[in-house]
Amino acid sequence: MNSFGRIFKLTDYGDTHGEAMGGIIEGCPAGVFIDIEFIQNELTRRAPSFDSFSTQRKETDLVHFTSGITNHCTTGAPIAFFIPNVDVQTNTETINVIKPSHASYTYHKKYGCENNIGCGRASARQTVCRVVAGAIAKLILKPYLIHIETSVKTRGHSKKEEDTIGAIVAGSIKNLPAGLGEPVYDKFHARLGYAMLSINAAKGFEIGKGYAAAEMCGSQYNDIQNPDFSFQTNHDGGVQAGITNGEEVYFTVAFKPIPTLQIEQKTITFNGEFVHYTGNKRNDKCVVPRVLPVVEAMAALVTVDFLLLNKAYKR
Amino acid sequence: MNSFGRIFKLTDYGDTHGEAMGGIIEGCPAGVFIDIEFIQNELTRRAPSFDSFSTQRKETDLVHFTSGITNHCTTGAPIAFFIPNVDVQTNTETINVIKPSHASYTYHKKYGCENNIGCGRASARQTVCRVVAGAIAKLILKPYLIHIETSVKTRGHSKKEEDTIGAIVAGSIKNLPAGLGEPVYDKFHARLGYAMLSINAAKGFEIGKGYAAAEMCGSQYNDIQNPDFSFQTNHDGGVQAGITNGEEVYFTVAFKPIPTLQIEQKTITFNGEFVHYTGNKRNDKCVVPRVLPVVEAMAALVTVDFLLLNKAYKR
Amino acid sequence: MNSFGRIFKLTDYGDTHGEAMGGIIEGCPAGVFIDIEFIQNELTRRAPSFDSFSTQRKETDLVHFTSGITNHCTTGAPIAFFIPNVDVQTNTETINVIKPSHASYTYHKKYGCENNIGCGRASARQTVCRVVAGAIAKLILKPYLIHIETSVKTRGHSKKEEDTIGAIVAGSIKNLPAGLGEPVYDKFHARLGYAMLSINAAKGFEIGKGYAAAEMCGSQYNDIQNPDFSFQTNHDGGVQAGITNGEEVYFTVAFKPIPTLQIEQKTITFNGEFVHYTGNKRNDKCVVPRVLPVVEAMAALVTVDFLLLNKAYKR
Amino acid sequence: MNSFGRIFKLTDYGDTHGEAMGGIIEGCPAGVFIDIEFIQNELTRRAPSFDSFSTQRKETDLVHFTSGITNHCTTGAPIAFFIPNVDVQTNTETINVIKPSHASYTYHKKYGCENNIGCGRASARQTVCRVVAGAIAKLILKPYLIHIETSVKTRGHSKKEEDTIGAIVAGSIKNLPAGLGEPVYDKFHARLGYAMLSINAAKGFEIGKGYAAAEMCGSQYNDIQNPDFSFQTNHDGGVQAGITNGEEVYFTVAFKPIPTLQIEQKTITFNGEFVHYTGNKRNDKCVVPRVLPVVEAMAALVTVDFLLLNKAYKR
Repeated sequence: MNSFGRIFKLTDYGDTHGEAMGGIIEGCPAGVFIDIEFIQNELTRRAPSFDSFSTQRKETDLVHFTSGITNHCTTGAPIAFFIPNVDVQTNTETINVIKPSHASYTYHKKYGCENNIGCGRASARQTVCRVVAGAIAKLILKPYLIHIETSVKTRGHSKKEEDTIGAIVAGSIKNLPAGLGEPVYDKFHARLGYAMLSINAAKGFEIGKGYAAAEMCGSQYNDIQNPDFSFQTNHDGGVQAGITNGEEVYFTVAFKPIPTLQIEQKTITFNGEFVHYTGNKRNDKCVVPRVLPVVEAMAALVTVDFLLLNKAYKR
Repeated sequence: MNSFGRIFKLTDYGDTHGEAMGGIIEGCPAGVFIDIEFIQNELTRRAPSFDSFSTQRKETDLVHFTSGITNHCTTGAPIAFFIPNVDVQTNTETINVIKPSHASYTYHKKYGCENNIGCGRASARQTVCRVVAGAIAKLILKPYLIHIETSVKTRGHSKKEEDTIGAIVAGSIKNLPAGLGEPVYDKFHARLGYAMLSINAAKGFEIGKGYAAAEMCGSQYNDIQNPDFSFQTNHDGGVQAGITNGEEVYFTVAFKPIPTLQIEQKTITFNGEFVHYTGNKRNDKCVVPRVLPVVEAMAALVTVDFLLLNKAYKR
Repeated sequence: MNSFGRIFKLTDYGDTHGEAMGGIIEGCPAGVFIDIEFIQNELTRRAPSFDSFSTQRKETDLVHFTSGITNHCTTGAPIAFFIPNVDVQTNTETINVIKPSHASYTYHKKYGCENNIGCGRASARQTVCRVVAGAIAKLILKPYLIHIETSVKTRGHSKKEEDTIGAIVAGSIKNLPAGLGEPVYDKFHARLGYAMLSINAAKGFEIGKGYAAAEMCGSQYNDIQNPDFSFQTNHDGGVQAGITNGEEVYFTVAFKPIPTLQIEQKTITFNGEFVHYTGNKRNDKCVVPRVLPVVEAMAALVTVDFLLLNKAYKR
Repeated sequence: MNSFGRIFKLTDYGDTHGEAMGGIIEGCPAGVFIDIEFIQNELTRRAPSFDSFSTQRKETDLVHFTSGITNHCTTGAPIAFFIPNVDVQTNTETINVIKPSHASYTYHKKYGCENNIGCGRASARQTVCRVVAGAIAKLILKPYLIHIETSVKTRGHSKKEEDTIGAIVAGSIKNLPAGLGEPVYDKFHARLGYAMLSINAAKGFEIGKGYAAAEMCGSQYNDIQNPDFSFQTNHDGGVQAGITNGEEVYFTVAFKPIPTLQIEQKTITFNGEFVHYTGNKRNDKCVVPRVLPVVEAMAALVTVDFLLLNKAYKR
C-alpha cells in the first residue's frame, strides 16, 4: 500500500517529522548508468526556491544510495535510497488541532492517533521519494528517446497575499512506442490517472481532450489516420482503447489550494472545541512549480512499468 | 491485467464476437445473500432501451452463476459467472479497416492482429462483467447503508442526427465510514479515478470540486468542521489526504463521443490505403444512460475492496 | 487467492458438486498455437483409468474454450475455459459427518458451513484446471525445447485391499535456460515448492539432493564446473542461490494417503457425536498415477511464469 | 520480487558488501508496542556466537528504525529499518573465481556481472532483515499466545574439521486458530513451504508426517476427532485441505552444507580456467544454530499475514 508499479516498483517510507524519507526500487534492469547529478538536479527542482509561491523553508535534499548500484551502474538488486530530513521542527503547540482539509481528522479516524505527528506520511515531503524513483525511470527512458514534459496550464489568483491557490498542470510524454497499456482495467491512461491522483492535493485528471471531449461530436473528435499511419489529429491524447498509439500522450492534473494557510482559520480540536489556527510560514502557497517534477516522476514510473511489462508478454 | 481489486477482486474474460462474457469474483465473504433479481435488474439498466440515444441492438443479458453460490448464499469460494452473447454478428466486410479512434490500430500494434476480431475485448460489452460484480458489491454494501448514485451532468448536443456525442456523469457514494483509503499511492480517490478511467471512452475524472478547486483560494476551499465533527462544507468530496472523512464522496467522469458513427468517415486499412467506413446502426450514440450502472459498479467495487482491506489492518 | 502466477497466471473456480470447473489464464502471449488434442490428452492422463489404484468413477473431462483463442491461436486476450462436471452425485446422507483428515472441519471453521457441500473446492477435481493451464504452458515451452517429466519414485503398500496409500513423485525440468529465478524470496525452487505443496495431499517437497543433502559434507556436495562451464555433478538440482544454472531441475513431492477410505472409520458429526463413516467406492486409492500430469502442470506454470518475467527485467 | 507477504509485507534490500541491510514492513497495524530489546535479542540469536559451528567473524547487528514507530508504538505507517554492515571486507583476489554451488555463476547468467560483488544479495546476511520483520510479527502474535519454536533435528557429521555440514531443522507453531489458509494455491503449508524454501541453503520442506506420510496407509494416517473436536493424532501437522485445524503446525526444513569451505576446492574462473579456491575463515560450517531464528521469523511472517488476511474476508 506504500508502493507503486508492477514490474518497476517503488516502495517508500518516511514522514516529515522523522529522520529521513526513503525507498526501495525494484525491477530496475541491471546495467543502467545512474547519473547522480541528474537525480540530484531533479530533487533540486522539487525543492523550494526563491519563487514567491514556494516555501521559504530551507531544504537540502541529498539522496544517498545504499544498495543496488556499483560503479555508478545498477546491478539488478533492489535500489535503496534515503534523503535525510535536515530541518525537522515539531509544532507541539498545535498538536491537538485538526488542520482543515488536511490529514489530521482522517488519519485519526483510520489509525486512532489524536495528534498530527502520525500524519507525517501525508506531507508533500513524501514526494522526494517519487522524484528519486522517477529520475531513475527517466534514465531508463533516455535511450528510447522517450521524453516527459510539464508546464503550468493555469494558476489561481489569490485574493489575499497570505492565501493559497490551486493550479492545473499540463504534462506530456513524447516518443512513446505504440502498444503500451492493457485493454481493460490497466489502460495506459487509467494507470496514469491513478498515479497522478495519488499526488498530494490532486483532485482531477484528464487525458487528451478530457472534459472538453464530452462537448464534442464523434465526427469532430475521431482521430483519422493517414496512409503512412500518422494521425491527422490527436484528440485521444495518444491512447486508444487503453493502449498507446505512438502519438504524444498529453494530460492535465488539477490541484486544489494547499490547505495550510498563513491566514487564521477557525477549526476544532480533537476534543471538539472551536479554536483558531494559523499555519506556519514555511508552507508553500501553491503546489506549482514544485509539483512539476513530481508529475513528471509519476509519468516516468508509469511509462517504464508498462515498457518493461510489455516485454513479458512476448514469446 | 484483466482484474480489478485487491481483496474483492474481479477477473474477467470474453469478447463481443465470442460466445460469452464472464468472470470470477474472489474475496467475497461467505454468507452474502445473492439477490439474482437485483443483479439481473442492474444488467437490464446497462442493456439498450428505447432511449433514442441507445443502440437498437437486441441484447438479452442473462447471467448464469456456476460456482460459489449455494442456496442463494455465497460460500466463500470464488464466484464464477457468464453471460452468453446471443446476438453475435461478424462484419467480415470491414475486417481490414482501421476504425477511427477505436481499438483497431492499437491492438494491432500490441498483439500483431490485423483484423478487428481480436479487438472484441475493447467492446463496451465487456462492462456486463463489471455490472455483475458491482451488483454483488452493492449487496455487500447494503447492510452498511452505503449507497451509490449516478446522474447525467451534461450531455453533448449532436449536430447531425446520426452523429455521436460525449457526456459527463456525476456519481456519489453516501454513508461511507471515515477511514477508508491508504495515505500515499492507494488514496481512496486515486483508486476511484483508476476504476473510472478504465471504463470505455472515459477521458477525465475529478473528485469533490475537482478542476474548479484549481480556481479557488485555500481560505474559500478548506472544509471547516463543527464541534460535533460534522463538516460545514464538502469541497474535498469526502476524501482528505486520500482517506474518507465520512462525508459524501462525489465525483464526475468525462466520456468522449462513441467512436463508431453511422456517418461515413474517411479512414485507412491495415494496408495503409484510404477507405470510407460507416459503422453499423447497432451502436449507441452516447455512453449514457447505459454507462450509469457501470460507473456505479466500479464505485461499488472500489468501496467494498477498501472496506474489506481496512479490516485486515486491525489487530 | 484462487490464482497462481505473476505474469502467466491461472485463476480458477468450481467445485466438485457444481456444474463445471473452469478458469481464466492471463499473460499468455498472442500467437501460441493451441493444440486441443494435446490438452485433451493431458486431461485424459489425469482422468481415472483401469489402473487398480484409481477410482472407477466415470469421468469425461472435455474442455471448452470460450475466450482468447481464434483460429487455434491465442489472441493475447484472457483465455477462458470450463470442463463440465458430468457425473455429480451428492451424498446427502453423510452431509453432517466430518470426514477425517479432509476439508470438512477446516472449511467449517473458516467459512462457517456445516456441511460438506461447501468443501467442493477441496476436491482433487479442481486439478483439471491446473492441467488445462499447464498444458498451454507446455505448448509455450515446446519451441524452447524445455521438457517436463514425472515418475513414481515410491508408492506405499496397503495392508488391506480397501485401504489407501501415499506416494513420492519425482519430477524434472530439462533444457531450462540459466538465469531464471529471483535472488531472495522468489527463488526458482521456492516457487516450485509453493506450487507443488498447493497440490491436494502434498506434504513435502525437495529439490536436488533435498533431505539427503542434510547428511552430506560441503566437499562432497558442491557442484564443480568444467572449463566449458558444464557441471561435474548436479546435487543442487539445477538451482543455485535461487537461480537456474542450466542443469536439469529435479525434485520430489511427497503425498499422503488419500483420506477417503472404503474402510469404515470412526469419526464425529458437526454436532460432536461419534459416528461410523465409510467413503464411497468412487475414490482413488492413491494419488498416483493421476497426480503426475498435475505435478507436470504446476512445474510448467512456474517455468513459463519465470521465463516471461525474466524478459521484463531487461532493458 | 524482494518482498514477502500479502498484507503483512517485508520488502528488503542490501548486500553483504554494501553499507547496510534494510527493509520496509507494510501492513503492521497501528498501536503495536515495539520491544526493541526483544528484536535486538532475536538479531543476536542470528549473529555468530562461540559455538564451534559458527563463523568467528565479529558481527554487531544493531537495528535502526527510521519510520513508522513513535513512542515505541507502530503508527500504521510503513516501518523502515536498517542494520549497518560494520565489518565489510572485499576479497578482491577471488573476484574472478566462480565459487562452487554458490551464486557466482547464476548471478552472472542472470545479471551479466562477472564478479562476486554483485552476488551480495545471495549472502546469508540478507536474513537479518527477515529476523527484524519476524520479530515484529512475533510481537503481533504475542497477545494471541501464538508461539513459534525451532530445534535442530539432525546435523551432519563432518569428515574433516574444516569441512561444512548440512542439517534438518524442526519447527512448530502452537496455539494457531483454526481457519487460516486458502483452499487452493495459498494453502497454509504451501506458503509456509514457500517461505522456508526461500531461506539460503534450504533444499527441502515437509509438514506433519511429510515424507513419512508417503509410507503410511490412510487407515493409519487419518487424524480422527473426539466429540469435543480435539484430535486423537496430528499426522497432518495442523493443516487439512490447506487450512489450519487448531492443532500444532509442525514442519521440517532441510539445509545443504554451506558451500564456502576452508578446504581447497578446484573450480573455474569466469574465463573458463581451472583454479584452486579456498574460502576465508569467516564463514560458518553449518547453517545451525544461526538459521533457527530465521526459520522462526519466516514462520511468524506467514502466520501474521494469514491472520490479518483472514480478517478481510469477513463481512
